[in-house]
Amino acid sequence: MPLSRTDLQSLRSLAQKKHRHGQGRLLVEGSRLVGEALESTATVERLLGTDGFQQSEAWARLGQAAARHGLLPEMITATQAEQLSDTPHPQGIFAVVRWPFGADSLTIQPPLLILDGIADPGNLGNILRTADWFGVPTVWVSRESADVTNPKVVRGGMGAHFHLPNLWQGDLAAQAQQLETAGVTLIGATMDGGPLNEVKPPPTSWALVLGSEAKGLSPFWRERLDVAVTIPGHGQGESLNVAVAAGIALHYLLPGKG
Amino acid sequence: MPLSRTDLQSLRSLAQKKHRHGQGRLLVEGSRLVGEALESTATVERLLGTDGFQQSEAWARLGQAAARHGLLPEMITATQAEQLSDTPHPQGIFAVVRWPFGADSLTIQPPLLILDGIADPGNLGNILRTADWFGVPTVWVSRESADVTNPKVVRGGMGAHFHLPNLWQGDLAAQAQQLETAGVTLIGATMDGGPLNEVKPPPTSWALVLGSEAKGLSPFWRERLDVAVTIPGHGQGESLNVAVAAGIALHYLLPGKG
Repeated sequence: MPLSRTDLQSLRSLAQKKHRHGQGRLLVEGSRLVGEALESTATVERLLGTDGFQQSEAWARLGQAAARHGLLPEMITATQAEQLSDTPHPQGIFAVVRWPFGADSLTIQPPLLILDGIADPGNLGNILRTADWFGVPTVWVSRESADVTNPKVVRGGMGAHFHLPNLWQGDLAAQAQQLETAGVTLIGATMDGGPLNEVKPPPTSWALVLGSEAKGLSPFWRERLDVAVTIPGHGQGESLNVAVAAGIALHYLLPGKG
Repeated sequence: MPLSRTDLQSLRSLAQKKHRHGQGRLLVEGSRLVGEALESTATVERLLGTDGFQQSEAWARLGQAAARHGLLPEMITATQAEQLSDTPHPQGIFAVVRWPFGADSLTIQPPLLILDGIADPGNLGNILRTADWFGVPTVWVSRESADVTNPKVVRGGMGAHFHLPNLWQGDLAAQAQQLETAGVTLIGATMDGGPLNEVKPPPTSWALVLGSEAKGLSPFWRERLDVAVTIPGHGQGESLNVAVAAGIALHYLLPGKG
């Protein structure tokens, strides 16, 4: 039985931040992300697939994973998939997942990545994907950044939302004291710092702080930095994309694990 | 006098690849990119601004630069700006620029960046911006990649199109022999290469080869690599974004210049 109109409306409302946060739910899309959700500790409440998708091998795999969670897959029409989707060519597979996925507490498990005003959802998703690749356990995102539950951010994260144990978004400035008390060394990416390559990563705990695409680090964080670093450029470009800068800095600061 | 309807249509047609290549022209948008065009060796044919933009300080600066080129700025209406623009909130400033900007010849000036099937215009623009930051002089882009003159690629490049002396797009495979003859070491980013950190950058000339977002390097380039490298990950992520990978590899391979 296809979804009722009311049910469809309620799922569609999850495209809006206020409904995602109000309901404490996300709509996750595509076989890969849905698979990551089912394999994670997140609570998957529903699994919805089109007729077309239910013919696929991917469906069989996801269906088995869902069964282990005691979930019964629901059928949706291709038209409903288009109405639910954030992309022009939906795969036809969705999951409703509880948010936050893990604990909502502010755990300081170093190293940390601190994102101070990343406005573009594509950049934010890309940074989370990068943090996931490098195994950065703790990512704090300022409230002024794009919403971490935005479908574009979730898609760009490529599963990072389900892997990062301490992903949190809120009032960043209120946490500065806690970082200082914990003795976390703050390394900020700026346009006028010392060359990244000359930084000796502190042996204990550090946090990499990245500012907004347009304005860089806010004065608040700039004043609190222990080290300001710049990625040495040799060309005519004025700046690097913030996700590219995050990747370069994390690769440099986490070399020992290679 | 505002633009004629025919003129407007002709400029709008530059949104399409066949017209950009057919006319040998691009429409470049925004004060920053237009400024880069005026400061570069590119031939700027026209400069168009709205009434609103012509009140701004940026306009005065661009107008002076235009005057040095013997260019008379033209007036457009806000509605025309919206029709010409690739963005939802146009700044109201455009330039018509001849393409290719520089020589169209295939110059081998190492190091090279070889892009084999970068499908997403945002990623391609971001990679060009990164190459510009690191001063990579030669970038070759496969025909199957996004079109380098795509407005999204030009915008994402943040001026790279005007700075890279040897930016070329065409039949990449046909150039493989030339690279071999020139003794260029091919370093490819793959998912199963040796750790990037163990590569000693060859002292003479090298090319970094990056494959498509979905499929990675094609067998053609994979077979020809001298070195296959992987960026060591320590988390659960399955992959890195290709522009982030490009940034990490270029930063590692070009350390001496820091």
